[in-house]
Amino acid sequence: MQVSALTYEKLIEQKIAELSIDKAPAQLYEPLRYILSIGGKRLRPQLIFIANALFEENIEDCAYAALAVELFHNFTLIHDDIMDNAPLRRGHQTVHEKWNPNTAILSGDTMLVVAFAQINKIQSTRIREIYDVFNSTAIEVCEGQQFDMNYEQQNDVSIADYLEMIRLKTSVLLAGSLKIGAILGNASTENGEKIYRFGENLGMGFQLMDDYLDVYGDPLKFGKQIGGDIISNKKTFLLLSALDKASAKDKVELLQWIAAENPDNAEKVQAVTAIYSRNGIDQLSLAKMQEYYSAAYLLLDEIQVPAHKKSDLKNFADLLSKRIQ
Amino acid sequence: MQVSALTYEKLIEQKIAELSIDKAPAQLYEPLRYILSIGGKRLRPQLIFIANALFEENIEDCAYAALAVELFHNFTLIHDDIMDNAPLRRGHQTVHEKWNPNTAILSGDTMLVVAFAQINKIQSTRIREIYDVFNSTAIEVCEGQQFDMNYEQQNDVSIADYLEMIRLKTSVLLAGSLKIGAILGNASTENGEKIYRFGENLGMGFQLMDDYLDVYGDPLKFGKQIGGDIISNKKTFLLLSALDKASAKDKVELLQWIAAENPDNAEKVQAVTAIYSRNGIDQLSLAKMQEYYSAAYLLLDEIQVPAHKKSDLKNFADLLSKRIQ
Repeated sequence: MQVSALTYEKLIEQKIAELSIDKAPAQLYEPLRYILSIGGKRLRPQLIFIANALFEENIEDCAYAALAVELFHNFTLIHDDIMDNAPLRRGHQTVHEKWNPNTAILSGDTMLVVAFAQINKIQSTRIREIYDVFNSTAIEVCEGQQFDMNYEQQNDVSIADYLEMIRLKTSVLLAGSLKIGAILGNASTENGEKIYRFGENLGMGFQLMDDYLDVYGDPLKFGKQIGGDIISNKKTFLLLSALDKASAKDKVELLQWIAAENPDNAEKVQAVTAIYSRNGIDQLSLAKMQEYYSAAYLLLDEIQVPAHKKSDLKNFADLLSKRIQ
Repeated sequence: MQVSALTYEKLIEQKIAELSIDKAPAQLYEPLRYILSIGGKRLRPQLIFIANALFEENIEDCAYAALAVELFHNFTLIHDDIMDNAPLRRGHQTVHEKWNPNTAILSGDTMLVVAFAQINKIQSTRIREIYDVFNSTAIEVCEGQQFDMNYEQQNDVSIADYLEMIRLKTSVLLAGSLKIGAILGNASTENGEKIYRFGENLGMGFQLMDDYLDVYGDPLKFGKQIGGDIISNKKTFLLLSALDKASAKDKVELLQWIAAENPDNAEKVQAVTAIYSRNGIDQLSLAKMQEYYSAAYLLLDEIQVPAHKKSDLKNFADLLSKRIQ
């Protein structure tokens, strides 16, 4: 049975609906139902199914793993939003805003344990490998969030630091999801490793694209405010590259915009974007992105399964990598 | 090999020292090393070894389980202290005070995942049962914390509500630790269940003793301020029983003390203690405690292993239950 992406999505929603999180104390479980109900693309759980389809199909186990990964992802959103003091998530109030920070802390904790409880329902004899991937991924995501917070305060962030931070914060969970799907399909260690690295590279490209679109995206298509990273002086690949490579004059201007207190935001976005553009930072960013996507496609080629089995995964990668067009 | 409690303690400290939590980002891992370094009785990990000694000895696996339980317990302390706005833990600054709440949230999260990572090192074929006990215990501890926070705001808390709250918040982790030790010793399901219920009852007695000592303890021996629960109007077994059973006149006085804004704390403690005493709440509390301890000893008797094997566990229970003398 070849299950389509649409079927995966329906299956994931069904499994989420079946979670036994409608119990007492209501104050603890309501935020779990809330965060799961306000949308989200369910990218990570889909990746589990899509990766699994390359190997031996194991829908039942994948469904538990998919739940675990989606619960984990949402747990990180609840806690990250407290740390980032974010008012909105997916266009809705964040959990700590709708309730309070204590509820967000404790509901998040519960959500993480509920995620682990799903993994324990997996029947595969390779359960320990699943736990290993899940644990090391979870720890790396926490490390990534910590680096991200550190870099807000830190002035000497290098491009390499930044790339490692987004690898931890974003890529490893995509990579880990793919690897879990592969292991559940009884993939060889080598194929598991390849699909992991495919996911890592895809994730890097994805995040770099996000940074690029934050500056150069179509306001109508891009979900967030254009220039948000510029306004908040976020040390993205673009800003760090500009600080590294811009002309001396532009560097001075860029540093002035960064240091400016209460600048006109529209003016700042326009000026910084112009600095990026005339120093080729947009092209540099696209080239870096392409580097990661190329590496991803190469790794996909190397996975030793018949080519036709890879089409869904390739389509998925195409979708992500062609967001720009 | 019969390993003594002292040896367990040394083994636990050694295993804690061997944890690979001395890595980057330092801001994430320092709080883990800190909270583990400021003491703690390591009761829960000891219970794993002591329970295991009733059955087939499995020191290696028990050490990982012991680490997992101690890490989990410390994770709850870090997050509970944020929620309770507590300045001190074990006589030292709490993590959110020493660093900040964000660090406490994220380090706590990391500690929880590191706990799970220890479980995955267990070699026993009954690993899934271990995870089941660990997961359901962890979820119940979160539920207990939520009920505890709810009850601070809630006026209609019953004695049954309170007992269920302390069962979740305190007892199940003692019970779960014992059961994990038993499973790792390949105990029968029945013995595992018995030792769990033994732990639950022991934990209930332990917490009721704590509440009692908060009022009637020897200030020189009790680690905390005498009367702390009275000052904060904490809805303990004593307060709830007094509200239920005190004479009409005393009930009025008690409610006045609860409602008093900025009372003289020493006066309040003295007056409320007097209300408890003349309404027999102290004796009622001791009787309830004894009920749980008796149930615990009965369950210990019922565990089907030779009596001499139970001596360490009995000694442990004696130590806890005789704190009052």
